Amino acid sequence: MATSYDPDTYTKILLDESEQPTQWYNVIPDLPEPPPPPLHPGTLEPAGPEDLAPLFPMALIEQEVSTESYIDIPGGVLDVLRLWRPSPLFRARRLERLLDTPAKIFYKYEGVSPAGSHKPNTAVPQAYYNHQEGITKITTETGAGQWGSALAFATAQYGIECEVWQVGASYRQKPYRKTMMEVWGATVHSSPSDVTEFGRELLAQDPDHPGSLGIAISEAVSAAVADPTVRYALGSVLNHVLLHQTIIGEEALLQLAKVGETPDVLVGCTGGGSNFGGLSFPFLREKLAGRMNPTIRCVEPAACPTLTQGEYRYDFGDTGHMTPLLKMHTLGHSFVPEPIHAGGLRYHGMSPLVSHIREIGLVEAIALPQTECFTAALQFARAEGIVPAPEPTHAIAATIREALECKETGESKTILTALCGHGHLDLASYEEFLSGNLVDLDLDQAQITAAMETVPVIG
Amino acid sequence: MATSYDPDTYTKILLDESEQPTQWYNVIPDLPEPPPPPLHPGTLEPAGPEDLAPLFPMALIEQEVSTESYIDIPGGVLDVLRLWRPSPLFRARRLERLLDTPAKIFYKYEGVSPAGSHKPNTAVPQAYYNHQEGITKITTETGAGQWGSALAFATAQYGIECEVWQVGASYRQKPYRKTMMEVWGATVHSSPSDVTEFGRELLAQDPDHPGSLGIAISEAVSAAVADPTVRYALGSVLNHVLLHQTIIGEEALLQLAKVGETPDVLVGCTGGGSNFGGLSFPFLREKLAGRMNPTIRCVEPAACPTLTQGEYRYDFGDTGHMTPLLKMHTLGHSFVPEPIHAGGLRYHGMSPLVSHIREIGLVEAIALPQTECFTAALQFARAEGIVPAPEPTHAIAATIREALECKETGESKTILTALCGHGHLDLASYEEFLSGNLVDLDLDQAQITAAMETVPVIG
Repeated sequence: MATSYDPDTYTKILLDESEQPTQWYNVIPDLPEPPPPPLHPGTLEPAGPEDLAPLFPMALIEQEVSTESYIDIPGGVLDVLRLWRPSPLFRARRLERLLDTPAKIFYKYEGVSPAGSHKPNTAVPQAYYNHQEGITKITTETGAGQWGSALAFATAQYGIECEVWQVGASYRQKPYRKTMMEVWGATVHSSPSDVTEFGRELLAQDPDHPGSLGIAISEAVSAAVADPTVRYALGSVLNHVLLHQTIIGEEALLQLAKVGETPDVLVGCTGGGSNFGGLSFPFLREKLAGRMNPTIRCVEPAACPTLTQGEYRYDFGDTGHMTPLLKMHTLGHSFVPEPIHAGGLRYHGMSPLVSHIREIGLVEAIALPQTECFTAALQFARAEGIVPAPEPTHAIAATIREALECKETGESKTILTALCGHGHLDLASYEEFLSGNLVDLDLDQAQITAAMETVPVIG
Repeated sequence: MATSYDPDTYTKILLDESEQPTQWYNVIPDLPEPPPPPLHPGTLEPAGPEDLAPLFPMALIEQEVSTESYIDIPGGVLDVLRLWRPSPLFRARRLERLLDTPAKIFYKYEGVSPAGSHKPNTAVPQAYYNHQEGITKITTETGAGQWGSALAFATAQYGIECEVWQVGASYRQKPYRKTMMEVWGATVHSSPSDVTEFGRELLAQDPDHPGSLGIAISEAVSAAVADPTVRYALGSVLNHVLLHQTIIGEEALLQLAKVGETPDVLVGCTGGGSNFGGLSFPFLREKLAGRMNPTIRCVEPAACPTLTQGEYRYDFGDTGHMTPLLKMHTLGHSFVPEPIHAGGLRYHGMSPLVSHIREIGLVEAIALPQTECFTAALQFARAEGIVPAPEPTHAIAATIREALECKETGESKTILTALCGHGHLDLASYEEFLSGNLVDLDLDQAQITAAMETVPVIG
């Protein structure tokens, strides 16, 4: 396609539907060594496909352990992705001017999806493969609601039922996410709920239990394994989820090439790791092949600093010990960030793949306090228009740090980041920030120590 | 640009920034007769530029009365519009399949703007021209908050202050719209407020006064005329506002041409008329020139049926009699729809230009009950993904009616509509609908009769 970009004015770089990537990229075969496998929670032996079969359809289990570098995206998935993909890549000209920086700032915007984040990129193929294998209902958990919304939207596309356990505190504080899921036809429970045994146990101890992501996972998993026509879906952490997100980075590569740019620095926020992996893995491929050499940086919240302060160990993915053990940076599966922490990115662990890549030194990680992130978000919103979700405010703050460093050194670096969602359903957090009620608390080291003591000692 | 659209799969038709329209289209010179002029509220003589000068910058007043067919969009406006424009045109393939209709349904989606609706299309040039003429602050009113958000975003782009009077009931029921405006730096008052004389009078009568759009306009106007460095901005109704919105229709014309389509039916929802005018006027030009022959249809809520049940008379634009008199379809300037009516589209009057075009028979108008609209919105959201704002649910419901008629007759009509905004900040209305609390009330004819009695008798 012959498209001309005026170098002085271009603001967004679009791709045609004919340029939409038709394969997912699997980074594992290109790594110097593969990540350690998940372990069965009973035997402590590497978990095989049969261990995962009660949870996921076979096509996703195959993707989870695939050694192929590229996996074709089915036509029935591409058809739905086309509702919003390819997503735009923006040049943040107004932010550059505001910061008076010689850096060039690019951001890949995933808020154009119906659910408003990058999560539908994996929710759609997960719903598709379940549907292909005759599954009629999918269960899942959600915290702030981004993932639950994404799965509700995706299951509606294939006529599958969707049942969501939403962390109780969020369910009560952010009722509109629940409504959004219901608009797409999902059933939503406040977690802990009275519809699972684990939930009833917790409610018996505390009828006003605020819940946590680890608890909601346990409830959704137990509901799935109880019925052979039901499966479970996870919105981050696992290899197949990160695989589905790589279309973000693949599109960004094509888009940057259209304006003749290669990134010097890549910045992505990390909660479970799927946004970060999706953006960075295709660039990591280029780096490992010697075709470009970007610095790649994870950014996490100082309130939940998994990669920067967690230990790299086998731990459970959930509170109820129902998932396989994953080798990852963890703060302990019972760790829960302070409630004042506004964003998502509240998970105690990290994608094993991102953890592994960090451990072997291919990427950096930093942690930022949330007041710096919201300050950056206001600068961004007033300059660029888009109001970011709390999660990518971390990426924006880290991008601004880098751009201001360029201003000091005079370097004209090209910075690429991902704005993985809009904040239209997170305005309560902005209200807290604007009214001065959102502050940074010191991390509760005693809680981490206690949480780490519950992590099984393996090997 | 040589772009290939696969006829079986294309889902959205994009335009490059190089294809962005660079002129606004003024329909007035192409009409068989011009619309009647506004009248000065004191003299009842046609209002001249000097009468409007305390309210608007001269460039906008010139546009209001322009006899030119095309007006260049300044580069400083195009730069900001480029943050989201050109907007996508979607082919609603999934909705077509759900309805099992031979019709082809296209929708122009304006929810991609930072404020989430078509309103920034005019907020940006209004802020630009005010800034050019040295104005440092703009006042306005807002109901549900779409327009206030748009102006807050636009003024932030040019470093102008923005002061918004939000209808009290909305201010209290939809706090997140206020937060969004504050994120972009605006000051927001609940209307009636204690910062204007008119507001204080009303609060003295009722400290819990729910407010209305007409009252909020009076407050914003009075605050603007009191200070020569301050001007007022209106988000709909006036000629220059509709002019700025014509880029919607101009883009849609280019996009439909790319896939070889011309519309048989155009459907747009009407509140003040700017979304409808923006979509339809370029197509009306084509129709008047004999190059195509679409049926053009306004859709309004049965709870505020201005075009279908109002009288075509001179009336005030506001409750406090501070604006010029406009010849338009009106329910009386003191008319306020039932609070249960969820959407925007609550204005007692209509754009004089749309009223005139309706009066001379160039367009049709129908009114739909809101439960039909929300039912249509659920169908749309589950099929197409996007959750519509309450306003365009009217357009969607009318589109579905037309598509189902095609199913009966077997006609394969091409239907074009505008999805003028997303509903991310309107999920409370969906919650009401899903829980069965949103119903259709009979129109209070006695209220309309009483409101019409306060309309001045002219000529």
